[in-house]
Amino acid sequence: MSQNIAPPPTIDSKFILPFMNATRNVFHKMAGVATTIGKPYLKTDAANTACEVCGIIGFTGQITGSVMISFSESAAQKLVEAFAGVKLAITDPDFADAVGELANMVAGSAKKDLGALASISVPSVVIGKGYIVAMNRNVPCLVIPCSSPLGDFAVEVSIKRNPGD
Amino acid sequence: MSQNIAPPPTIDSKFILPFMNATRNVFHKMAGVATTIGKPYLKTDAANTACEVCGIIGFTGQITGSVMISFSESAAQKLVEAFAGVKLAITDPDFADAVGELANMVAGSAKKDLGALASISVPSVVIGKGYIVAMNRNVPCLVIPCSSPLGDFAVEVSIKRNPGD
Repeated sequence: MSQNIAPPPTIDSKFILPFMNATRNVFHKMAGVATTIGKPYLKTDAANTACEVCGIIGFTGQITGSVMISFSESAAQKLVEAFAGVKLAITDPDFADAVGELANMVAGSAKKDLGALASISVPSVVIGKGYIVAMNRNVPCLVIPCSSPLGDFAVEVSIKRNPGD
Repeated sequence: MSQNIAPPPTIDSKFILPFMNATRNVFHKMAGVATTIGKPYLKTDAANTACEVCGIIGFTGQITGSVMISFSESAAQKLVEAFAGVKLAITDPDFADAVGELANMVAGSAKKDLGALASISVPSVVIGKGYIVAMNRNVPCLVIPCSSPLGDFAVEVSIKRNPGD
């Protein structure tokens, strides 16, 4: 589409709605959790908050970028328990697998509605206290704040359409 | 190639050599640093060490996975200074950009020699103290230990050839 040949200054809303819907659907269907999606905002260096548990997955194809789901440790523990059906210690490899699988499902579900040919990589799961996932300044990043009865989390979408695609 | 239709139990060495060469070449050409590449070993949950600065980039296509370059804070500061030509604070967004660019160059350079069609996503850069990047248990991960006069680092390659590709 001609209006997308140059990278937009921010992310086209048609790239964001699929992630909002995918998040709501995946957490509802796979964890039985009703998620309230807040108003997305553009991430800036100054607003880069410390993370505890996050799953990151890359996109390639007509779009390039990544999506990250970021939880506090407390929210991740409750949401993973709802998803896995069993309480898992944060140090259990199954815990990281579950976080990665949630990221994978959200990315995979959103991918179908992006209106662009895209492939997703495997998730990387980062667990710790107060680390930062730095913004990539070549790709705008929109944060979708999400709240649920089991805790709040955020879905960060950094994607751009490749020139000419 | 028929022997690669099923995922291998470990990573095919022909997927590892390109990363060893790419690492040596990128750090030599872009940072003027001679890197000594150690013997790669299979990463296990038990051997998952805490990270301080890492750049992660995803692969998709005939192969799926990711590559991660992981530095101590001290090594990252010295190697980024050699690469950028200027000393950068770890909190400077240019510092994260430089780490991401190093990961991007290593992944991009290795990609050409993988013998498979592959695309790379944008790098995610994680900075903190003592966080863990969990293994993805669906994809074997080989750690390439690297040493240099400016500090040691590791390149972790988690890729598998997709069935049928």
